[in-house]
Amino acid sequence: MQTSRSNISIPEPIRDVFSSFSPRWLACIPLSALIVVAWHTAAVAQGFEAPADIDELRVVLDSIFLLFCSVLVIFMNAGFGMLEAGFCRQKNAVNILAKNLIVFGLATLAYWAIGYGLMYGEGTQFIGTSGFFFSGDPAAYGNDAYPAAVPEAISFLFQVAFAATAATIVSGAVAERIKFGAFMIFSVLLVAISYPITGHWVWDGGWLAEMGFSDFAGSTVVHSVGGWAALVGAVILGPRLGKFQDGRPSAIPGHNMGFATLGCLILWIGWFGFNPGSELAATANVPYIAVTTNLAAAAGAVTATFTAWLKDGKPDLSMIINGVLAGLVGITAGCADVNYLSAVIIGAIAGVIVVFSVSIFDSLKVDDPVGAISVHLVCGIWGTLAVGIFGTGSIVTQIIGILAIGAFTVVFSAIVWTVLKVTIGIRVTAEEESIGLDISEHGMEAYSGFVKEAGVFGSSGAAPSSSGMGATFK
Amino acid sequence: MQTSRSNISIPEPIRDVFSSFSPRWLACIPLSALIVVAWHTAAVAQGFEAPADIDELRVVLDSIFLLFCSVLVIFMNAGFGMLEAGFCRQKNAVNILAKNLIVFGLATLAYWAIGYGLMYGEGTQFIGTSGFFFSGDPAAYGNDAYPAAVPEAISFLFQVAFAATAATIVSGAVAERIKFGAFMIFSVLLVAISYPITGHWVWDGGWLAEMGFSDFAGSTVVHSVGGWAALVGAVILGPRLGKFQDGRPSAIPGHNMGFATLGCLILWIGWFGFNPGSELAATANVPYIAVTTNLAAAAGAVTATFTAWLKDGKPDLSMIINGVLAGLVGITAGCADVNYLSAVIIGAIAGVIVVFSVSIFDSLKVDDPVGAISVHLVCGIWGTLAVGIFGTGSIVTQIIGILAIGAFTVVFSAIVWTVLKVTIGIRVTAEEESIGLDISEHGMEAYSGFVKEAGVFGSSGAAPSSSGMGATFK
Amino acid sequence: MQTSRSNISIPEPIRDVFSSFSPRWLACIPLSALIVVAWHTAAVAQGFEAPADIDELRVVLDSIFLLFCSVLVIFMNAGFGMLEAGFCRQKNAVNILAKNLIVFGLATLAYWAIGYGLMYGEGTQFIGTSGFFFSGDPAAYGNDAYPAAVPEAISFLFQVAFAATAATIVSGAVAERIKFGAFMIFSVLLVAISYPITGHWVWDGGWLAEMGFSDFAGSTVVHSVGGWAALVGAVILGPRLGKFQDGRPSAIPGHNMGFATLGCLILWIGWFGFNPGSELAATANVPYIAVTTNLAAAAGAVTATFTAWLKDGKPDLSMIINGVLAGLVGITAGCADVNYLSAVIIGAIAGVIVVFSVSIFDSLKVDDPVGAISVHLVCGIWGTLAVGIFGTGSIVTQIIGILAIGAFTVVFSAIVWTVLKVTIGIRVTAEEESIGLDISEHGMEAYSGFVKEAGVFGSSGAAPSSSGMGATFK
Repeated sequence: MQTSRSNISIPEPIRDVFSSFSPRWLACIPLSALIVVAWHTAAVAQGFEAPADIDELRVVLDSIFLLFCSVLVIFMNAGFGMLEAGFCRQKNAVNILAKNLIVFGLATLAYWAIGYGLMYGEGTQFIGTSGFFFSGDPAAYGNDAYPAAVPEAISFLFQVAFAATAATIVSGAVAERIKFGAFMIFSVLLVAISYPITGHWVWDGGWLAEMGFSDFAGSTVVHSVGGWAALVGAVILGPRLGKFQDGRPSAIPGHNMGFATLGCLILWIGWFGFNPGSELAATANVPYIAVTTNLAAAAGAVTATFTAWLKDGKPDLSMIINGVLAGLVGITAGCADVNYLSAVIIGAIAGVIVVFSVSIFDSLKVDDPVGAISVHLVCGIWGTLAVGIFGTGSIVTQIIGILAIGAFTVVFSAIVWTVLKVTIGIRVTAEEESIGLDISEHGMEAYSGFVKEAGVFGSSGAAPSSSGMGATFK
Repeated sequence: MQTSRSNISIPEPIRDVFSSFSPRWLACIPLSALIVVAWHTAAVAQGFEAPADIDELRVVLDSIFLLFCSVLVIFMNAGFGMLEAGFCRQKNAVNILAKNLIVFGLATLAYWAIGYGLMYGEGTQFIGTSGFFFSGDPAAYGNDAYPAAVPEAISFLFQVAFAATAATIVSGAVAERIKFGAFMIFSVLLVAISYPITGHWVWDGGWLAEMGFSDFAGSTVVHSVGGWAALVGAVILGPRLGKFQDGRPSAIPGHNMGFATLGCLILWIGWFGFNPGSELAATANVPYIAVTTNLAAAAGAVTATFTAWLKDGKPDLSMIINGVLAGLVGITAGCADVNYLSAVIIGAIAGVIVVFSVSIFDSLKVDDPVGAISVHLVCGIWGTLAVGIFGTGSIVTQIIGILAIGAFTVVFSAIVWTVLKVTIGIRVTAEEESIGLDISEHGMEAYSGFVKEAGVFGSSGAAPSSSGMGATFK
Repeated sequence: MQTSRSNISIPEPIRDVFSSFSPRWLACIPLSALIVVAWHTAAVAQGFEAPADIDELRVVLDSIFLLFCSVLVIFMNAGFGMLEAGFCRQKNAVNILAKNLIVFGLATLAYWAIGYGLMYGEGTQFIGTSGFFFSGDPAAYGNDAYPAAVPEAISFLFQVAFAATAATIVSGAVAERIKFGAFMIFSVLLVAISYPITGHWVWDGGWLAEMGFSDFAGSTVVHSVGGWAALVGAVILGPRLGKFQDGRPSAIPGHNMGFATLGCLILWIGWFGFNPGSELAATANVPYIAVTTNLAAAAGAVTATFTAWLKDGKPDLSMIINGVLAGLVGITAGCADVNYLSAVIIGAIAGVIVVFSVSIFDSLKVDDPVGAISVHLVCGIWGTLAVGIFGTGSIVTQIIGILAIGAFTVVFSAIVWTVLKVTIGIRVTAEEESIGLDISEHGMEAYSGFVKEAGVFGSSGAAPSSSGMGATFK
């Protein structure tokens, strides 16, 4: 196609005719003949057959729509990366960033090789059993620019982006103490096996779909799956050193609220790919879904802000952020099934829930540095139930779905985390944790050249005798 | 729709039957007939009727176009957040980020409840009087994937994004000294009442539209409205402590130029939603508008760079940033009405204007920490006038529109700011301002774990005796 | 167009008629009368003629697709800015950010004035000789919302974004020691003259296109061109002070790995505009290209991670980042020509190459602070060769193209850098370099208010006696 670039405009002889006149001249002379020529040649000049009918063009519009939705969902990796890094301490920032970056690479390959086949391959009501190592050959595509059906490639891309989201949710809850290698293995297995199987039950005509379980964009299929895996991981790992001193939780503040806020806003726009894209086609429903999504996010932001303000006496930025995300996770299941006022209510309730949920997990001594469990698991459950309350789903069916997928994911996660624990180990040593995972796991600092408060340096830490080149610890 | 995911490819007839249709349809129609249908057309496999004609598909294309434009405009919240945070001091970063995040939530709800009705509801030439609490019901949308006209949902989403922009402009000018609650109330009132009324005059067939006032994407309707509100706020608040020592303005440098530059580049791409999206339909004019927008931004960047270089002896990064934004604000009114060379000239002049405007407001002792008044008000006025000079508008009409909208916004803002001042107060105490709003208003730091220069710590500040967990101030 | 906003939905009487029927009912009754009404009213309400046939709508879809692809590519400026700033020291951050911001402004104007004409103007097989100061008049566009061919405006916008990419690649390799003015001049000349000429050879039917040289999205045309210019610049400039002490390379760690990771993820999504957009039309091939792109990026990330882990004993975040980019650059030439498994292999090999390449350039004493030469030049060459190995290109032709374009770019760059060196000078003084370019070139700090490690401050640097307002150095 590369040589057709110059042909984006019509061929030279025709172009010459056009360019020799000013637009006004062109408007004054009879154009009909030229236009007929230009219009037929334009299609040929692009090297493609023109679409034969409306449906062929619709297929391409669907594809383009899903491409940009996929891009937005993939951008959520940056959102999660910034959010989680910002909410953790600077001595672990490299580690969290590395986890959030590599997890999308691993998820892509794991889902390509195995997960996509288990989730969308032909098989039973419980599992797909074909379509591994999803293949595509340019010869099969390059000859048909306007095919009769949406190419499977775009479905795969959109689903890869979703699968990676489930894994990246985990990374926040286990942050600041997990071994890098153990996290990588867990992520691969979650995306390759667990997420696709439960996803198949709902989104590929499996037994939960048969029952009428309704989860339009994945409050349960994506968010609570990630949340359950995160919960199990956080419990098995145990809390960070110093989190529960004297039996009381102590605040361990994040190191970069700019990153966290940026991450939240990236996730907000990412959700406009996540929810509307789940329509899987460019239709007039898409704007509707976008509006419910936005209203719920806004309502979650506002109620979380005031809840935290009333509860703690200050409008806590980290709670505004989590309120936005709570509203978004909450509306994900019902974004196409509830009216606008219901969307506001669902988001508003999610914003209240998330504030108290964070406190509850703290009091249960489950250490979740970024609030991932409260946002994705608790509000994911809330959102799935809300379809039964405000939408067309049945509450009983929704509960069955939540429990079934939860049980599978908990059992799967518990097995994997436990096997990893007794084999390669999942937690860094206390000394490595004190130093920070950036130095101990990656041999580098996130913020070379800045003076940080203590920890690794002890009392003389504020002014290490580094060279002008910035200190390293390799 | 969630069960239709597997149908993005159309391989297996059995699978299609299970997943393509809603249960209601399955109950109503004999399966045998459906199998035949599912085999034959992708449209049916997706669970939708195919579009009946070109116009139905055009409507969906318009919707998808406006969705992604809306996403870009909503992303501008991240741009403004990063820009304003970067240009302020680290001790106020949490506050600025919190303002920029919550303002989009508040604006969404306020515009949904009231603003959209005042702006686009049916009414008089001066105000809309219907359509409050904009409602939508999935039953009305979910049955008509390819309707005859663009769904109002997408218009609402696009307009919400615009409304929030006006409010977020204010936040920069009043930064580092305003009370969080007062800012929230002002933002709600601006988005709910003031912005929609003046917007109605121009963009909903109001009296200024009748006169021929031309403001394609909102140099005046959005940017100068935000700028006027910002100016009034900055004047009533007064300058930051220490800004005008000994009668001379002293530079108070921003704390994170990486954030500021990122914010600028996010805003740059956001403008490709802002200006082209204002076409309100996917047409061949859209690329034209994108090119004028980009040329003006580039020209503003270059002229601001050289103007600052000549004026101050250094190429000041904050002026390159403001030059980009000046060019963008300047071209916003005329992006569809001027030729490319004019776009370059409009942007180039805006880039010069912004550099001198910043100095002038400094000399007038109006303290605007991020230059928002110069960028949005001054260049917004310039851009609106430029339509009369380079485009099809009449200068006289343009001036009438600028003055009318400016007068309304100034009076409205002055009343609101004054009422807030005498009731709840709009400015933090001098002590709170010295400590920084992050600690005094939010009880948290933006950059926990880093050693900062003085201020709150006094002379011993460089090495506080914190624990390895990072210090908190709760 | 601004006054048509309220008319985005069709008038109520018409809408009522439509909404009282379900689509299936509508499909079953004679529609012709209704359609005629809807179509005329919709068009009039929007202020546009309706598209006359499928092809007119296709043209608009192509335009919208390319607009959003252009936005993604333009967003890559933010990606490069964050990546390069993060990989350098904080004392040079303002300088790098300023370079990455102004370069897009300069590139836009230079390409508008000269480059676009040399690249896509009519001319010979070696150079275009027309179309300078690309012009557009709203009168010519505003009257034809659905033209017969894709408007040239969108081609220009997409090509501008590409041209800027080539220039921004250079900025990383010459960072931390180049004069700001010299970089600006070089960038303008590269984008105005060198890049367009070699681009014309391949993408506008020039002699390499005639030979069958295949480079779909620019592994050579964009990335290795930028890489060659970077290599020549880095060699002529010489290494940074302290980089090669005692003959051995010493690590100079970057100052903000959050910025670098964010930059990488922005570039990742930017590539979904870069590669699929190079199809230059909305077709069903686009998803295919997106999938090969994503698979290669993922594979590069994973292999670079493990290669660095095996080689250096740690999973180095900067190598994960460069692995992603290596995979992306590697697949750029062949993204439309290779099957999915080949895409994985191409990316995987690129991920290995980049790790060793960084070491090799270090051992050759070529100082490239961000690894730009390894990513863009070396992997650009690899990707271009890979088309001959895995795709439809001929290896011999690919090598001829690589060498011809490389030779032209090297000669051009060497001349320009040398002329700049002997005239205005290209390198700052040793003292300026020690202080950092932020203070010496721009008179400002990137992180005012934070305490940094030494360098400019000497041993007392950790606690400068600044005021509470943050120190400046003007």
